[in-house]
Amino acid sequence: MSYVLSYYRNLISDKILAAYEKLKKADSYSHDACSIITEISYLTSEYLSSLPAIELQSKVKGKHYFAFAANEKYSRAINKALFQLDAEEWDSLATSIVQGAFDQFDNPNIDKILYSTAISFCASIDLIKSRDQKTPGTFFEYFIAFLYAWRLRCSPIREIQVLNLDGDTKLKTDFIFDLGQGQNKFHLPVKTSTRERAIMLWAHQRLLDGVYGVGTFMGTPVCLAETKTDKRKREVVEICTPRQWQVYQIHIARLKRVYYLDVPEEYQKLDQATPKIIVRPFSQFFKEWKELSPN
Amino acid sequence: MSYVLSYYRNLISDKILAAYEKLKKADSYSHDACSIITEISYLTSEYLSSLPAIELQSKVKGKHYFAFAANEKYSRAINKALFQLDAEEWDSLATSIVQGAFDQFDNPNIDKILYSTAISFCASIDLIKSRDQKTPGTFFEYFIAFLYAWRLRCSPIREIQVLNLDGDTKLKTDFIFDLGQGQNKFHLPVKTSTRERAIMLWAHQRLLDGVYGVGTFMGTPVCLAETKTDKRKREVVEICTPRQWQVYQIHIARLKRVYYLDVPEEYQKLDQATPKIIVRPFSQFFKEWKELSPN
Repeated sequence: MSYVLSYYRNLISDKILAAYEKLKKADSYSHDACSIITEISYLTSEYLSSLPAIELQSKVKGKHYFAFAANEKYSRAINKALFQLDAEEWDSLATSIVQGAFDQFDNPNIDKILYSTAISFCASIDLIKSRDQKTPGTFFEYFIAFLYAWRLRCSPIREIQVLNLDGDTKLKTDFIFDLGQGQNKFHLPVKTSTRERAIMLWAHQRLLDGVYGVGTFMGTPVCLAETKTDKRKREVVEICTPRQWQVYQIHIARLKRVYYLDVPEEYQKLDQATPKIIVRPFSQFFKEWKELSPN
Repeated sequence: MSYVLSYYRNLISDKILAAYEKLKKADSYSHDACSIITEISYLTSEYLSSLPAIELQSKVKGKHYFAFAANEKYSRAINKALFQLDAEEWDSLATSIVQGAFDQFDNPNIDKILYSTAISFCASIDLIKSRDQKTPGTFFEYFIAFLYAWRLRCSPIREIQVLNLDGDTKLKTDFIFDLGQGQNKFHLPVKTSTRERAIMLWAHQRLLDGVYGVGTFMGTPVCLAETKTDKRKREVVEICTPRQWQVYQIHIARLKRVYYLDVPEEYQKLDQATPKIIVRPFSQFFKEWKELSPN
């Protein structure tokens, strides 16, 4: 690789990491958050567009994947049908949300825009850093919280009060969006993938049900994808445990929705089963959030 | 380092990994499991005794830590007061358990023997492999399951049946020890540390309570320690969230005991609080298991 190209990539990498540090300090419900995520979207598009894309073998019916390569590493798997390198699309979407004009945003590819923006950052970090799961996970949390906050026009809360006769306790939680007295209250865990930790989504909902009563908070977690890549074979699988999810939904708590940016088909089918679990593309939330009710 | 010493260490490393592979295939309630764990104990003692021990700064009141160093890495933090490199002690303990003679085992240092055996394997893998959390975690599961199985004289179950009107489901679980009709049933999650995943211990208990009824299974998880080391500063802290544990104990499920090989003081104090959570050194289980009852 030429010295100039390498220098150029390092420069963008540094800018991506610097923007991420700024994002961690910004309120989700702020114009700053919007500018920083948009900056990140342009930077990661620029970074990734300079890299070779490597075909991966898909073991998931109907889905095709590739990975970007750099620094002798591969990024995580990227779903081809949901991916485009076009930061301007995100820019328009973000602008329409912040201006309260989302309902007039007539681009049919919202899922593609959301998935591309999120996975571009994650894939960039896979290549820039080594075995860093925390940075992509934290970015994804801020990214989703930003979208919720501006769609609901409300700042998230990160801790709740818990009654205890020996003295009240503050409990750290996932994002909570409380639209006010008598209005909807959303409980929003955010995960890049759930794997064997899926039970935590239901357990946190159970905790809120216990502290505030069943039906107070609607659990509407958002996940990125459930892909796993065998690096040696370059094979992609989706890790799903639908039967376990059903047992959680019966015996731990009821989740209102589980949203995905790349929905696993095995989970999407759960809305036809008993117990019903409604798993949908995240774009649906933007359309249906007003109609959701806890009971 | 001399060529011979390096050759010798690689040889032991390979033997440790080969023994671990055998352990994964052995039943917990078998003489094989006993021989393999004892073999591992001798091998890791031999491996670690050839390595320098590096002093760590302890930020935990009353505890002192060090780490072994090799391959330009440090092992996880090891609690000095609980550590001894003496595989023969484990050999005697394991023999007495397998021969059903534990009640006559009059060595007062059971906690030291258990901690040393477990952490010696984990520390060895920290140095032999890179960023491998899975191998130490899996070994620790088999190690604790072996001790439970022989103390209770009963094989563990790893899945339970769940009723569902649309067809029954098998659900994978942590270790379950069922002593038979009308007898105690133990639910045993095993974790090297819990950190921000502690809620999973209570959630799995909740699941069993839901499926089989409250009071059927006693939740008695076993953990190794809650230390975290800042590699740059060489500082050790214990990560504890006692307030959160109390909320889980009230609102998710009741755990009968939480056992540790290196008990964090912040958790040990919880048996004086409301709600009460009884956190004890794992050696206590060997003495009290018969007296435990679900209600």
